[in-house]
Amino acid sequence: MMDSLFGTVLDNTSHEQLYYQLYNILFQNIVEGVYKVGDLLPSEPTLVDYYGISRATVRKSMELLVTNGLVERRRGVGSVVISNQPSSALNKVASYLKRTVTDDGKPFKKVISAHDIKADDKLAKILCVATDIELFELKRVRYGGNTSFYLETVYVVHSYLPDIHKRDFSKESLRSYYFDIMHKRWVRATQHICAEVASANVAKQLQIEPGSPILTIYRVTYDQNNIPREYMIKQYRADKYYLVMNLEN
Amino acid sequence: MMDSLFGTVLDNTSHEQLYYQLYNILFQNIVEGVYKVGDLLPSEPTLVDYYGISRATVRKSMELLVTNGLVERRRGVGSVVISNQPSSALNKVASYLKRTVTDDGKPFKKVISAHDIKADDKLAKILCVATDIELFELKRVRYGGNTSFYLETVYVVHSYLPDIHKRDFSKESLRSYYFDIMHKRWVRATQHICAEVASANVAKQLQIEPGSPILTIYRVTYDQNNIPREYMIKQYRADKYYLVMNLEN
Repeated sequence: MMDSLFGTVLDNTSHEQLYYQLYNILFQNIVEGVYKVGDLLPSEPTLVDYYGISRATVRKSMELLVTNGLVERRRGVGSVVISNQPSSALNKVASYLKRTVTDDGKPFKKVISAHDIKADDKLAKILCVATDIELFELKRVRYGGNTSFYLETVYVVHSYLPDIHKRDFSKESLRSYYFDIMHKRWVRATQHICAEVASANVAKQLQIEPGSPILTIYRVTYDQNNIPREYMIKQYRADKYYLVMNLEN
Repeated sequence: MMDSLFGTVLDNTSHEQLYYQLYNILFQNIVEGVYKVGDLLPSEPTLVDYYGISRATVRKSMELLVTNGLVERRRGVGSVVISNQPSSALNKVASYLKRTVTDDGKPFKKVISAHDIKADDKLAKILCVATDIELFELKRVRYGGNTSFYLETVYVVHSYLPDIHKRDFSKESLRSYYFDIMHKRWVRATQHICAEVASANVAKQLQIEPGSPILTIYRVTYDQNNIPREYMIKQYRADKYYLVMNLEN
């Protein structure tokens, strides 16, 4: 693990005290994930030796790391990394998608396609089913008046919701169908939020130029048995949406 | 407010019960924000009249909205929207930036520029200062080995940190400088996360093609007196980073 320190030297001519220079090197390495949670930092004698500084200096650096909530000193073990985020880091208190523009037009969803497809390798893996299983694919564009806002693509295993192809999701909420009609219970989801550029096809649906930026959310939702039940892709026009995150101490 | 319902009719020939059709219309309008929190829904008599259905049917729709945590019935007032998010919505439990690739190379930050600029209108507004105030602008690229990962641009009012131009932020953590050296205390931040495409200049720093997608985080951090102290723009290569959000019931 000394590898990560290799090449870094302390600067005796700096206005910065040596303990603070060492602290900074270790801090950077922890925050950058070179040292991971649970890793041991190099021992005091190793650091004394490597940098040619006093034991007291090394201790002072370690104390500052402890104060910042990054390191814990364990008797007989050494200095263990307990967090990669300084305790002064702010905690998320709220996050939500925000429109950059007011959406004055009448909101509605237009169904682009609603039919069965055979799961390819990627979809099969995400939904934990065999390849070629029948999936119901629903694509809708959310409009405000004549302007499109986002494209939504949903995949569910058809046999899980055998009548789903009979519904009209230009009128009905998918969520209401799942929960009110089918009495499904989903408890957990994982979302990946990515910056992408629109393909020709997506651009057409979203009334933008191909290559325009889109904010894409990939979401897998799991039921109470931890079985993935829905895979949803929402492609938002980046000129109309951004994600807001508020953080607090 | 009946405007939003204009043109929607219930379908007597549908396999869907009428109360559920009405519920769906109201649900959609609430979730889409046509009715906002605090808004009154159209009264029972209005809905009875408009759709030509029984009062019992309207009540059943309202009850389902109440069950879903969207509406509260207030005696002598009517049905008030109390949330635009169904209670079955999942709550965020964690979110973090994730690399799509392992970052094997030695991590370091290269300082691209570190100098004063005069606040333009936009920066002045964000940092609540007069136009033309001296801002210290720090641009750094985070590398892993020879590969660039993100570009970071920071603006602070120079007089707030008079010695900041003397520091070497290729070696020192900006965060350590703020908190350990300058003993600043920041309590709150707002982040906007946007999908963008790289300009020629940004693309060059990030070793990508102009027009490639980037995930940009705009962050304003406030001190305990609610004064904005730092404006930071982080431009992440979208081929290397995405945001993960875990949600739970």
